[in-house]
Amino acid sequence: MIFKYPNGKAFIPKNEKLAYKKENNVQYSNRGMTLEEDLNETNEYYRERQIAVIHKKPTPVQIVSVDYPKRSAAVIKEAYFKQASTTDYNGVYKGKYIDFEAKETRNHTSFPLQNIHEHQIKHMEAVLKQKGICFLILRFTNSDEIFLLEAEKLLQFWNRKKNGGRKSISRQEIETDGYKIPLGYQPRIDYIKVIDQLYF
Amino acid sequence: MIFKYPNGKAFIPKNEKLAYKKENNVQYSNRGMTLEEDLNETNEYYRERQIAVIHKKPTPVQIVSVDYPKRSAAVIKEAYFKQASTTDYNGVYKGKYIDFEAKETRNHTSFPLQNIHEHQIKHMEAVLKQKGICFLILRFTNSDEIFLLEAEKLLQFWNRKKNGGRKSISRQEIETDGYKIPLGYQPRIDYIKVIDQLYF
Repeated sequence: MIFKYPNGKAFIPKNEKLAYKKENNVQYSNRGMTLEEDLNETNEYYRERQIAVIHKKPTPVQIVSVDYPKRSAAVIKEAYFKQASTTDYNGVYKGKYIDFEAKETRNHTSFPLQNIHEHQIKHMEAVLKQKGICFLILRFTNSDEIFLLEAEKLLQFWNRKKNGGRKSISRQEIETDGYKIPLGYQPRIDYIKVIDQLYF
Repeated sequence: MIFKYPNGKAFIPKNEKLAYKKENNVQYSNRGMTLEEDLNETNEYYRERQIAVIHKKPTPVQIVSVDYPKRSAAVIKEAYFKQASTTDYNGVYKGKYIDFEAKETRNHTSFPLQNIHEHQIKHMEAVLKQKGICFLILRFTNSDEIFLLEAEKLLQFWNRKKNGGRKSISRQEIETDGYKIPLGYQPRIDYIKVIDQLYF
């Protein structure tokens, strides 16, 4: 069954769109999609099994104009992407607040800190002050390896950069200070296992 | 200084728009704006003073088409409002996960349960299972009185409705089972004070 928008355009669910694009082997600059998909599936797995309640926040959008056609849904006609003031994912696990950002890099040997924004760092600092559990999930796209790096460690590298040091975290440092998350089938990125070892 | 969008339209920050509209004494059907504004200011107050880190989640939007004009920001040309799968507000306070929904009613004597969606109830149940702190903030618009009702209590009323009982929570029940939040200047709706008494 195909649903159609008021303008006659067919509605294709997001997942199907992606599958379609992948089959056609199109190249994308935004490889982040894949990590996001994997994390969404992982979080769904956690929610279904009542392991944790963690969601990705919606993309923040500044809405400028909306049409209200009769007998059909409101259509946003003009809107702009806003910069997020927090990290992308948060929720609850065993009563504790969980908060993280997820990033991919095509680099082989380092993670460039320009991938993280100043306001996200500020948010992480604030979360840590409130004793929340806060971290970065990081994928090296080429080797498909995923690491969890605690916000406390990320802040150290951020401050090193601010003080004139290197503008990235080396792969070696991530391996030493972070925790490798093995890729699985269900859940795909079992980061709660790492959280369990570190905080519970 | 006036900023302009690529289409030449002036950019008016949200707050100014509201102030402008208020001066002109226009009537709105969506009085919910006011409760949201007050809560946003309250949360800002909490964040600035490092009392708690709580944010409103962005409105979820399904983006259908985006223009990428040269040398200016991407413009969303077609998008639709999606139903939220969670409550609107969440964050962390003293390590604990905080999660709530905020609603207003013009009714004098009861709060209609149709203001809450089934998926929000499911989300609240899931949060409680993870030992998160979860509640409803409720404003009676006409008397400008605000109450905090714990999710556990809300679920009881929801189940009563599901079992064929009344479709609303009476004002009397809210006064008995909920906690009145006094309105202040800074912060406007000091709900953390109630949370402190109940959980800490």
